Amino acid sequence: MSAAGVQIVRTTKELRSIVAAWRRDGHGVALVPTMGALHAGHLSLAQEALKRSSRVIMSIFVNPTQFSADEDLDSYPRTFEDDVDKFASAGGHLIWAPTPSEMYPEGFATRIVPEGAANGLETDVRPHFFGGVATVCCKLFTQTLPDFAIFGEKDYQQLSVMRQMVRDLDLPLEIVGCPTVREADGLAMSSRNAYLSNDERKAAVAIYTAITDVAQQIELGADIDGASQSARQALQAAGFGQIDYVAVRDAESLEAVTSVTDRPLRVLAAAWLGKTRLIDNVAAGPGSSR
Amino acid sequence: MSAAGVQIVRTTKELRSIVAAWRRDGHGVALVPTMGALHAGHLSLAQEALKRSSRVIMSIFVNPTQFSADEDLDSYPRTFEDDVDKFASAGGHLIWAPTPSEMYPEGFATRIVPEGAANGLETDVRPHFFGGVATVCCKLFTQTLPDFAIFGEKDYQQLSVMRQMVRDLDLPLEIVGCPTVREADGLAMSSRNAYLSNDERKAAVAIYTAITDVAQQIELGADIDGASQSARQALQAAGFGQIDYVAVRDAESLEAVTSVTDRPLRVLAAAWLGKTRLIDNVAAGPGSSR
Repeated sequence: MSAAGVQIVRTTKELRSIVAAWRRDGHGVALVPTMGALHAGHLSLAQEALKRSSRVIMSIFVNPTQFSADEDLDSYPRTFEDDVDKFASAGGHLIWAPTPSEMYPEGFATRIVPEGAANGLETDVRPHFFGGVATVCCKLFTQTLPDFAIFGEKDYQQLSVMRQMVRDLDLPLEIVGCPTVREADGLAMSSRNAYLSNDERKAAVAIYTAITDVAQQIELGADIDGASQSARQALQAAGFGQIDYVAVRDAESLEAVTSVTDRPLRVLAAAWLGKTRLIDNVAAGPGSSR
Repeated sequence: MSAAGVQIVRTTKELRSIVAAWRRDGHGVALVPTMGALHAGHLSLAQEALKRSSRVIMSIFVNPTQFSADEDLDSYPRTFEDDVDKFASAGGHLIWAPTPSEMYPEGFATRIVPEGAANGLETDVRPHFFGGVATVCCKLFTQTLPDFAIFGEKDYQQLSVMRQMVRDLDLPLEIVGCPTVREADGLAMSSRNAYLSNDERKAAVAIYTAITDVAQQIELGADIDGASQSARQALQAAGFGQIDYVAVRDAESLEAVTSVTDRPLRVLAAAWLGKTRLIDNVAAGPGSSR
């Protein structure tokens, strides 16, 4: 129990006992899965959770299985005490912060492998990623058995993979997606923005500008390949290095599309600025608002 | 609703509604997953379920994803009306019989991949098998959310994979294993015994005799490799064709063992009699009873 009244729980057994008591008292439960390093985007997820349920759990777990050996597991920002204070101020109730050995005890040997919405995009450059995310989120869901799990649209492909997994595995909860929270200039909030130098921070908004341009151009009738190619050029001109992808996909299935139809679309991009990898996405096509 | 009072349910939505009503009335729920073609072994699982819970669900679903293209999916025995009558006579409450399209709707794209206890044995000859079993059983568990799921020790490696999955994915239920039910001569009951000719049926008991001999010999100090080799020879002498494996494993982890220690062991075998593949297993080592 922290000073602010937020419970900090480290074992599945204690977590289940608390949630069971909440359920007996008639409370609804919402879960906000995070890796900590909370910013205003995470807190907007907590606010959405509080609108839907009378008890809100935030999980804080930097999940080793979604990082490859050459990624930033060790340097990923960890600000646990600040995170607890922020979550408490937002009105949250419980922080679920298991140790890696509580999450993956010796002998752990069951993986979830998502395909469909997990194909391509992030998977092309991070083939380990969604297997790790799906497995840990399935565990978070079955540990807490919430009514809702709240995810940000910032990680749009992840949100799609979560919806697919919950549907395919009949997990008894609803996945809720929340709009990306942006800085004043439009840059999507991300824990990894902390890696950016001052100059990189100024250049970073170009990823948002580029995908917004793609969305506007294809709505006006431009060719999808041509608009994506222009976005790549704009990113390079702004100082981005490797561009992992600029892509237009069906907003629901995440299947590749070659033309604008009556279905909602999503423009997604991932690119490197110095040593920092940024991702972002916006809606496009019918009914989209940016 | 059948004449005998057993409810037959075809959609997850209806299933959940019924189970939720049971829960509101304070009932416990046990699940017996089957592929139908019920024999006395299945009914012993239903009896165990009735001892533990006031409401018992039997799922009957011939799961296409655990059969490979050259296996017996189309010819697998289907005796649904008889199954309903038998389950009703045993005192069961609900038969969960989804269609393949209810279980795997269009766009289904999430698999569970078990390793650990799934490594070797059946996986060496049926590499698709436990992925299919784990995925469908995870779905059966999350669809019904039972307190207990009851499996026979006849499929011992499957039982181990289920225990591993429930532990690894924090599924909120307990896996219960029940002793294999045998014919008068010792042959393990199996839906696939229906494939055997009269002569094959007489020869089939040799698989039980052979693994029981291995268990007795290694308890008396015989070498594990030597005892397994003798069992293979006995199976060949009895008329078995291809022998997929005769193996001695740790009873809990299913890891290979090279000597008898103070840990419980399991002797497992799979072999072909004509066109029928039979599997069986018995306990060995400390505290085992056969």
